[in-house]
Amino acid sequence: MEQAVRKIALLGMGTVGGGVYEIIERQKEEMPFKIGAALEVVKVLVRNKAKYADRIPAEKLTDVWEDVIGDDSIDIVVEVMGGIEPARTYIKAALEKGKHVVTANKDLMAMHGHELLELAGEHHCDLLFEAAVAGGIPIIRPLKQCLAGNNITEIMGIINGTTNFILTKMKEDGMDFGEALQLATDLGYAEADPTADIEGYDAGRKLAIMASIAFHTSVTFDDVFTEGITKITAKDMRYAKEMGCSIKLLGIAKNTETGIEVKVHPTMIPENHPLAAVNDSFNAVFVHGDAVDDAMFYGRGAGALPTGSAVVGDIMDVARNMLFHCNGRIGCSCYKNLPIKQIGDTTSRYYIRMRLEDRAGTLAAMAGVFAENDASIAILLQKETIENDAEIVVVTHEVAEKKFMDAIKKFSSMEMVKEISSIIRVYALGNV
Amino acid sequence: MEQAVRKIALLGMGTVGGGVYEIIERQKEEMPFKIGAALEVVKVLVRNKAKYADRIPAEKLTDVWEDVIGDDSIDIVVEVMGGIEPARTYIKAALEKGKHVVTANKDLMAMHGHELLELAGEHHCDLLFEAAVAGGIPIIRPLKQCLAGNNITEIMGIINGTTNFILTKMKEDGMDFGEALQLATDLGYAEADPTADIEGYDAGRKLAIMASIAFHTSVTFDDVFTEGITKITAKDMRYAKEMGCSIKLLGIAKNTETGIEVKVHPTMIPENHPLAAVNDSFNAVFVHGDAVDDAMFYGRGAGALPTGSAVVGDIMDVARNMLFHCNGRIGCSCYKNLPIKQIGDTTSRYYIRMRLEDRAGTLAAMAGVFAENDASIAILLQKETIENDAEIVVVTHEVAEKKFMDAIKKFSSMEMVKEISSIIRVYALGNV
Repeated sequence: MEQAVRKIALLGMGTVGGGVYEIIERQKEEMPFKIGAALEVVKVLVRNKAKYADRIPAEKLTDVWEDVIGDDSIDIVVEVMGGIEPARTYIKAALEKGKHVVTANKDLMAMHGHELLELAGEHHCDLLFEAAVAGGIPIIRPLKQCLAGNNITEIMGIINGTTNFILTKMKEDGMDFGEALQLATDLGYAEADPTADIEGYDAGRKLAIMASIAFHTSVTFDDVFTEGITKITAKDMRYAKEMGCSIKLLGIAKNTETGIEVKVHPTMIPENHPLAAVNDSFNAVFVHGDAVDDAMFYGRGAGALPTGSAVVGDIMDVARNMLFHCNGRIGCSCYKNLPIKQIGDTTSRYYIRMRLEDRAGTLAAMAGVFAENDASIAILLQKETIENDAEIVVVTHEVAEKKFMDAIKKFSSMEMVKEISSIIRVYALGNV
Repeated sequence: MEQAVRKIALLGMGTVGGGVYEIIERQKEEMPFKIGAALEVVKVLVRNKAKYADRIPAEKLTDVWEDVIGDDSIDIVVEVMGGIEPARTYIKAALEKGKHVVTANKDLMAMHGHELLELAGEHHCDLLFEAAVAGGIPIIRPLKQCLAGNNITEIMGIINGTTNFILTKMKEDGMDFGEALQLATDLGYAEADPTADIEGYDAGRKLAIMASIAFHTSVTFDDVFTEGITKITAKDMRYAKEMGCSIKLLGIAKNTETGIEVKVHPTMIPENHPLAAVNDSFNAVFVHGDAVDDAMFYGRGAGALPTGSAVVGDIMDVARNMLFHCNGRIGCSCYKNLPIKQIGDTTSRYYIRMRLEDRAGTLAAMAGVFAENDASIAILLQKETIENDAEIVVVTHEVAEKKFMDAIKKFSSMEMVKEISSIIRVYALGNV
């Protein structure tokens, strides 16, 4: 048994940093057997040293980046501070010095992943980021290795736990969005500023990372269409249920013949789809490949120990690579440059709920507008009567977003249309 | 781009072999970008060459093992013939010659995995076997790498598609076991001799492999308790449903303080458990670790292309290791030697359905026998009256198997007990 020690610097000691630190402590005895080396956290970079004085030995704590980057004994830099800067600068500096990097930073990888992976490659360094997508769930390594023999055509995931918790509460307890968000905040699932979660930005970042790997093409967060869950109502939840569907915030990435589609939006999916049963703060990623067919990866998408589990798995892989002198073994896999489609050029099925004047001819007029825009109607339901208006629910067949939105625009200008109450995309292979 | 070619011999050209061959063909153009080398199948070892003459070029086909083992240009031997011999002899010979091996052979790995992995280690060779468990679902690599920082305490899986199909039909369509088996046979899900599937042997082999990896202790098929699904009746299915449960054939491996438990048996699980929603021929593996908490891996557990997907992923990893000169990077991980418990020493909850004489005092007598054997009763339901006997269903709290079976033995000798109709283990964290 080689008695080597791999020295680690932790950048950040927030939720994830704390989890990583704890797991390394727990696994102290086992590590030499698992990776032929001990792991030792030798530096922890924080802003306020006093805050961690009771948990981290004083000689490890530092608030000076120079103490990390200037220490040639440090093999692995673990970036768990989050945000673009100074994380990006630190990671680049570490790679340039030949240090391996493990990061949980989705914001950074979704914007600058390609650049950082290329830099790691130039310096024969590992840059691993399993924790950047779906917390503890193994997904990056399965995509890069286990499923590498596939032509992956689709990835679809519930990759934000906060919104999944909110939607679960709306569905199961009939709560309104506001109520459910409040509960999520009270329970600590939602941050003080929940924008990144509820507007789908967080999911969009994770989707960009997965799409890049699955389709071998650099996809950044800017390429992802995002629509949040703030407009989902308890009524839409109920109507979805009546049609045998759940509403989930999905990240959907498709590799089509005309380009890559990457979008995050609330989606109606049939109850019998495996993703429909993923509730509360759990995450799951559904993958379709030409060989593996359907596969799904399910688990905790956040939290100190689950996310720490992914980070430590990466650290251990770096250490194994060091033992075998093969760091950089799995690097950037974006060898293609496929076009990325605009949202208008993608297709979907749509659920639309609206209020029409309750008189003869309105349904026909509405159907006519859909027909003019190539949106054929799969389901048409007349629901309640509200203040003398008829509430109508329509589900279309697959249609180009641009065409569908043209139809909606037309409705907005028609006097007989009193309100377009909601529009939700529908995912279904068969008929709803 | 290095223009190296990795030469492959395929041992066997059955379902899985055909899938592997096809995927390698499909990925021809992409391979150099993915692994820095082309993959070429140069030999295909079969028993009857004529049978494959229309699919495989004649110069690649051979029925002589010497053509493979004697060919020093072959880098990777892919064993997809199945069974213990001659697979074991071939794999050993290949490793001794420094050839890397990828296998989908669960029978072999469940019996001789430890020996073969040690041999691979001695020769600095890769021996990869992702396809041996749960077909296309990535599970070996996630356990060995992504979740390596965890103390894994439990693995629970639906790891046999044939029995899951049968149980799904029994539940959803009210079929009896015989009917559902016939349907599975007609549809090609069950083999002509379905014993290995329906008696739980196939699942037991996969469980032994996963338990070895998760608990770092060599567990063989002989260590696994197996009970099949042949005694499950439509009535038990219905009663389970009434209690909010599904009956699934589960492989359950636990790492307890007193040793490792490995058992395959029909199990009632609550409907809200993620495994309960895994239907038809799909497989899924549920993992619990101290850091990651719960995770689940879902997909196709069999079939040419899904299983081929796992094999090709392994081949690509071997090729990558060759590029970086780090073969043998991930080898045997059984560095512990934990005791393995006998089934009698494990605990479970139990569902028991029996017919008692319908007179005063029988329930009290029955309850007394359970109490004497430390089996406390969680649920007691009087169901139908059959030929003047009362049909009783009891669900116990957690009790040692030995004690529970003592109670059953006692019942068998009691005149008031007319029939012990069925016994099914119950998995539930809370109350049923």
